[in-house]
Amino acid sequence: MKLIDGGVCAAQGFRASGLHAGVKTHNLQKKDVALIVSDVDCAAAAVFTKNVVKAAPIHVDKAHLTDGRARAIIANSGNANACAPMGEENAEAECAAVAKALGIPAENVLVSSTGVIGQTLPVKVIENAVPELVKNLAASAEGSDAAACAIMTTDTVKKEVAVETSVGGKTVRMGGIAKGSGMIHPNMGTMLCFLTTDCAISSEMIHAALLDTVGVSFNRISVDGDTSTNDTCCVLANGLAGNELITEKNAAYGEFLEALQTLAIALAKKMASDGEGAKHLVTCTVTGAADEKTAETVCKAVISSTLTKAAVFGADANWGRVLCAMGYSGVEFDPEKVNVWFASTAGSIEVCHQGRGLDFDEMLAKTILTEHDVEINVQMGEGKAACTCWGCDITYDYIKINGDYRT
Amino acid sequence: MKLIDGGVCAAQGFRASGLHAGVKTHNLQKKDVALIVSDVDCAAAAVFTKNVVKAAPIHVDKAHLTDGRARAIIANSGNANACAPMGEENAEAECAAVAKALGIPAENVLVSSTGVIGQTLPVKVIENAVPELVKNLAASAEGSDAAACAIMTTDTVKKEVAVETSVGGKTVRMGGIAKGSGMIHPNMGTMLCFLTTDCAISSEMIHAALLDTVGVSFNRISVDGDTSTNDTCCVLANGLAGNELITEKNAAYGEFLEALQTLAIALAKKMASDGEGAKHLVTCTVTGAADEKTAETVCKAVISSTLTKAAVFGADANWGRVLCAMGYSGVEFDPEKVNVWFASTAGSIEVCHQGRGLDFDEMLAKTILTEHDVEINVQMGEGKAACTCWGCDITYDYIKINGDYRT
Repeated sequence: MKLIDGGVCAAQGFRASGLHAGVKTHNLQKKDVALIVSDVDCAAAAVFTKNVVKAAPIHVDKAHLTDGRARAIIANSGNANACAPMGEENAEAECAAVAKALGIPAENVLVSSTGVIGQTLPVKVIENAVPELVKNLAASAEGSDAAACAIMTTDTVKKEVAVETSVGGKTVRMGGIAKGSGMIHPNMGTMLCFLTTDCAISSEMIHAALLDTVGVSFNRISVDGDTSTNDTCCVLANGLAGNELITEKNAAYGEFLEALQTLAIALAKKMASDGEGAKHLVTCTVTGAADEKTAETVCKAVISSTLTKAAVFGADANWGRVLCAMGYSGVEFDPEKVNVWFASTAGSIEVCHQGRGLDFDEMLAKTILTEHDVEINVQMGEGKAACTCWGCDITYDYIKINGDYRT
Repeated sequence: MKLIDGGVCAAQGFRASGLHAGVKTHNLQKKDVALIVSDVDCAAAAVFTKNVVKAAPIHVDKAHLTDGRARAIIANSGNANACAPMGEENAEAECAAVAKALGIPAENVLVSSTGVIGQTLPVKVIENAVPELVKNLAASAEGSDAAACAIMTTDTVKKEVAVETSVGGKTVRMGGIAKGSGMIHPNMGTMLCFLTTDCAISSEMIHAALLDTVGVSFNRISVDGDTSTNDTCCVLANGLAGNELITEKNAAYGEFLEALQTLAIALAKKMASDGEGAKHLVTCTVTGAADEKTAETVCKAVISSTLTKAAVFGADANWGRVLCAMGYSGVEFDPEKVNVWFASTAGSIEVCHQGRGLDFDEMLAKTILTEHDVEINVQMGEGKAACTCWGCDITYDYIKINGDYRT
């Protein structure tokens, strides 16, 4: 397996585009609508937010995915189309416009929105932009780039990854674009992620692979503990790689899954790293847990702790925050078996041994925590299970961004 | 029932003091040890943090409370005595020093600590201060004030309330002091709260009353979602009011409970209002819920939402954050029945009606949200249950305080 360029256009038979249609009215330079299209029909699957308040596009996508097939995805930023008048009608209108321009059924089009909640989607400007979106479709890195930029909200960098691997002896490519960057939390925080692959795989197996992937990637990141109304991760597989169709969890499925997980984890880390206002990517690894669920629960509590996040922001080796977060995670454990390490490329330092503070080198700890990528490593001493989750620090900028998000 | 002065010394037979012993080494002006003493033996009860990682004093207090009796409380700020070497030995040593100076059994002394986790408690400076603490004990507002100041950490104001009521025809007084102000979350966030009363009530009934009180007061506030290792709320009842001893949940118990809840809610609101860096007290009231548990869950999700807190900080009427928090609270409900209002002394404005955004007066909304005390009122349209919870906004100062808490 290797990293390649091309994002959502890396796999054979996928084209993408993005442009400024006018959903974002305050900045005419910012792209706000993206289109991703496969040359041929795809097996498709998606997972959505668990929030009870679901944006309109999610209801539409669920209906469109009942047959497990799709060919195109249209997505806008600048307006969430959630709790908004005419929500489902407008989402369906977007699909219809794309379907008409491409000459495919509207049921084969998926739709996503991200942005402000509660305002009517300006669907006309999107419909008007569809012909140009279709005209601009490109099977190139530039096409993927335009789409990746068009789904950004408060993201500061676009998130795009692609990998190439071998499935059943054939070269298979897959790629994805994603957006963060606030309202991110385990169980599908606000994020949109679109994955494409040329792997030949059935609708049932692509759905299974997506579930097996989301659990170890996007559901293991947190920016602020808020789970949004719009989260969507969807995958299209068009089969052009020519591998034998995967219809069960065989060896080829394993090869495909490994690559999909690698792709998704890379995108998830990019989201955490670009959390609103974040200055640090925080990777927490818990080892020695009784079981994986326990390790994951503890890991998520640590990366989600506002106090731990503030300590990382201040490069303050305040390991008491880590132990405290573990303690309220809901997991039972013996604090007197816990060791805690802080680490980065600048070094590694044990700060807590068997639940008691060590007399450590504060200057070294500060140097370690000043790096962009910071690790918190926790040994629980209870068993052999492990888990890694990703988060970020909380900064003045997070509050600035969210104190005045709508205006 | 009426509010009175005197804090923890308002009830008959209680004296208190506080001074700088030297636990806080960076500021010699700041008091760091408090002592509260009853002239006679008390029925006593306490509730503690549910965090698995518990500070040493909590283990000691549980042991000392097995008989439901106590006479004195010693508490320090500046060091949490949690995850620290010699934790329980040092906590016991504090009790022993107080017991010796007062001529009472060590088992009748309770102990609390708050501050940095993981550092050895400088117990000698506390032991050395005990004779002066005892000498300074005063049955006055000044005594309570000194104790209230001595338990402050990042609190910006002392928290002290007292009320007078009638129980079984007798005048009963009760008062309390408390400290916040970070690591505050439902289920006993970092807080210490000491309540005293001259009511005559059995150990069993004071314990029951405390549980009935904590659930509707301290467990309904949130500052940052972090539940600390040291949280303690304890109550001493010395019986000097001369009412008939309360030994069951009769009418007198109801009178006592009402006053205790009023006292605790007043202290809880002071904690939320003085949350680390907070500029606003946020009161969320949910009405029309199917049952009280549902109302409470929704209420807590709203006041705990980092995004909602950031919106209040920015005086941004971003009600989408409120609906979003409700949606991920874990409660099932129909978003299309939900109405949301923002209110303060500057006015009241409906911003969301039946799950859809209203075209409201943004200037009025901003004016409303600029007040210190802000209300978020949610009507769920599902039933008749209601709940109120209290929180605060999240500000640059919260991050500043917690980015460099230890140094």
